[in-house]
Amino acid sequence: MSHSVDSDVSAVRRYIERHRAAFLDDLAEWLRIPSVSAQTDHADDVRRSADWLAAALGATGFPTVEVWPTAGAPAVYAEWPSDDPAAPTVLVYGHHDVQPAAREDGWDTDPFEPVVRDNRLYARGAADDKGQVFFHTLGVRAHLAATGRTAPAVHLKLLVEGEEESSSPHFRALVEANAERLAADAVIVSDTGMWSEDTPTVCTGMRGLTDCEIRLYGPDQDIHSGSFGGAVPNPATAAARLVAALHDEHARVAIPGFYDGVVELTERERALFAELPFDEDQWLRTAKSHAPHGEAGYTTLERVWARPTAEVNGIGGGYQGPGSKTIIPASAMVKLSFRLVAGQDPHHVEKVVRDWAAGQLPAGIRSEIEFSPATRPCLTPLDHPALQSVARAMGRAFDRPVRFTREGGSGPAADLQEVLGAPVLFLGISVPSDGWHAPNEKVELDLLLKGVETTAYLWGDLAATWRHAP
Amino acid sequence: MSHSVDSDVSAVRRYIERHRAAFLDDLAEWLRIPSVSAQTDHADDVRRSADWLAAALGATGFPTVEVWPTAGAPAVYAEWPSDDPAAPTVLVYGHHDVQPAAREDGWDTDPFEPVVRDNRLYARGAADDKGQVFFHTLGVRAHLAATGRTAPAVHLKLLVEGEEESSSPHFRALVEANAERLAADAVIVSDTGMWSEDTPTVCTGMRGLTDCEIRLYGPDQDIHSGSFGGAVPNPATAAARLVAALHDEHARVAIPGFYDGVVELTERERALFAELPFDEDQWLRTAKSHAPHGEAGYTTLERVWARPTAEVNGIGGGYQGPGSKTIIPASAMVKLSFRLVAGQDPHHVEKVVRDWAAGQLPAGIRSEIEFSPATRPCLTPLDHPALQSVARAMGRAFDRPVRFTREGGSGPAADLQEVLGAPVLFLGISVPSDGWHAPNEKVELDLLLKGVETTAYLWGDLAATWRHAP
Repeated sequence: MSHSVDSDVSAVRRYIERHRAAFLDDLAEWLRIPSVSAQTDHADDVRRSADWLAAALGATGFPTVEVWPTAGAPAVYAEWPSDDPAAPTVLVYGHHDVQPAAREDGWDTDPFEPVVRDNRLYARGAADDKGQVFFHTLGVRAHLAATGRTAPAVHLKLLVEGEEESSSPHFRALVEANAERLAADAVIVSDTGMWSEDTPTVCTGMRGLTDCEIRLYGPDQDIHSGSFGGAVPNPATAAARLVAALHDEHARVAIPGFYDGVVELTERERALFAELPFDEDQWLRTAKSHAPHGEAGYTTLERVWARPTAEVNGIGGGYQGPGSKTIIPASAMVKLSFRLVAGQDPHHVEKVVRDWAAGQLPAGIRSEIEFSPATRPCLTPLDHPALQSVARAMGRAFDRPVRFTREGGSGPAADLQEVLGAPVLFLGISVPSDGWHAPNEKVELDLLLKGVETTAYLWGDLAATWRHAP
Repeated sequence: MSHSVDSDVSAVRRYIERHRAAFLDDLAEWLRIPSVSAQTDHADDVRRSADWLAAALGATGFPTVEVWPTAGAPAVYAEWPSDDPAAPTVLVYGHHDVQPAAREDGWDTDPFEPVVRDNRLYARGAADDKGQVFFHTLGVRAHLAATGRTAPAVHLKLLVEGEEESSSPHFRALVEANAERLAADAVIVSDTGMWSEDTPTVCTGMRGLTDCEIRLYGPDQDIHSGSFGGAVPNPATAAARLVAALHDEHARVAIPGFYDGVVELTERERALFAELPFDEDQWLRTAKSHAPHGEAGYTTLERVWARPTAEVNGIGGGYQGPGSKTIIPASAMVKLSFRLVAGQDPHHVEKVVRDWAAGQLPAGIRSEIEFSPATRPCLTPLDHPALQSVARAMGRAFDRPVRFTREGGSGPAADLQEVLGAPVLFLGISVPSDGWHAPNEKVELDLLLKGVETTAYLWGDLAATWRHAP
């Protein structure tokens, strides 16, 4: 091997500075495509977004770029093999679709007309996730430029799906069908965030998710609450009692078997979480909430990152219009979601929820339960060598020590972990104020370029320290 | 006094038979007026209905007939003083407005084109309430004819409102403004039913009603259940826990103070209820429900007629559309209604509900509670002389013993009781199959004429046995 795998910091920074303007112009062009996967009238835009990205990856230098059709929106796949056959293989995951956005939702400017103000780029998708996908383009070029290489130090693969904001309905099938081509020693997900502008962090895991709708049926139609009230079961009451029974008085999930297999936090993890500069009042402001509330015996961060939950996302039944209507409703429904942590099996959780729900209902109330496909939790141990590489690369880019977090949300990355059998690492530079899914989404330009810089160091570090998959 | 107060049965029946055809023709004419108070495009029809009734009461012989305007639909008032100044004064209550009805709702014939089939008169309002108002016209004429009187044995007043099917928003004010003219020793409500064709019954009371909407606010907007779930309070969970806390494990209302003042059933009343030919399976079919459910220690009839309830009429919060949305909703609401029984004060119930609700909510959940104007319960003791008169008159008309029931619903009659300080008695001949508020509403012609006959005996009986208000 004649090439260096180490990138000189000043060479990387010079390269990035020189290409910064073109990089941002290109990203803005992509952000102008309203690739809203949840809205069928944007299906063409999602396809255009895939084609645009494929062209951009080709221009970046990836020798193989393909648009992969699915039963829904297309994904983009790209490969850039290392010139070292023994190098590890890394698969980067991201998505090119975005959440819906409309000016009237509260945007100060058109969500699909990117603008830069105060060193921030405002647009739908700026942080979630086009900006974080796109830093990999300039990142790999900076890596090559600074090391004098013509191919990356690792075998680099990218998979950028087009349905993440619509729950990735076809992602798992796509990964399974292409498992051989996607095979990797590690998966790097760039669809998360870090602690704050001042505290770079590496995320070590995400919670999983399984959700269901429970429909409860009582009388065959709405009936008069005067004529019958007090003497027949009310499905809205049954729905409420079901939801109320989700938690015990310690806000712990009360479904028998729900916690089976849960990997408990280690003392070291709890200590690392506790070291983070966490300001609960500030966190509550971010949560737009007015008090903390959760499982007894755990801190807020532990609750969000490392504890499974049962949450009601929607409840409905009977008359919800203005004024009153004195009925016993014919039906009611609840939508429940369960965040899962490492060690929990979604199929087992589904089973215990079904058993529990069936046992909660009074005679005369019929139920239907429908589960959506689940997302598994994932967690990479703190001492995994690839995780250490990510932390080192980020530390160089940010010039400060990197800490560790987890992510409370869930993502299709878990499918990659499961199907490919590879650990999932998270490299994200978004910060909580970026406004994912909200009006005025933005990305901090300085952080976006730190993302570029991190990947410019990462491939070399990985290749140097982790030449063979564990 | 030279007049008889007693009406000979055969004389009454001959008189009714002779006038039956004209009576039914007249009623059909009234039923053709679609006096739907809930639909503003029928406002003219409601006014026409009032005018039509006023003319019919004038033709019946009432010397004073007036149409009383309200801020909404007009009521009709009529007076026919007895020639015996010492006679008791009776105020009959009914309503001339009807529920909405459209052929496409499932009617076999036009709801506003009355037809007679199988000795039943089908039309919207046939039973609720035009038929039951109208039997008082032929009834008072039969009373006069059979007794040879020129004026009724009691001071007879009628108040027929036009907004009952729209919750009587102006009724209380109307009664208060005219309390002196409406003054009565007893109120007779003809807007209820009896047990069945074979079992004539007198209703002795109605439940009251107070209802409220409770709105619960959590995060300032819907927030991500992955990022925040498990660590902040969820207003939909709070709403569900509130509803679940309404009842204890015996389905008894668990709000402290709710049962304050409740008049318990006497052993005699329980025995009378138990004598009724009650078929629980049949009742469940009528309730379109699949199991009985209610307060432990009480039968179904006791639960519906004599026990107060807490019922959720509507609940809503978060995402209720298809699929899933992993949010913690910003808000949720419940609509609760409380049926009240004699001895319960709606203002006290409102207070204990407010106190209870405030104590149920976790920190971080803000609530608003809004109560609608309440309807008081009413109950006339079984030994009240006017109630005994109604039972005797009905017994003569039906040639069989009369039993006693109560009504689980609530009505504006309670306002008459409260403002006028008079006991409320119920004289209704409708049966459960009449289809109030449903398609193909009808009245049984035989029962309608029994209603005529009952009132033909009633005024004489009342005057003879209850000459002075208690």
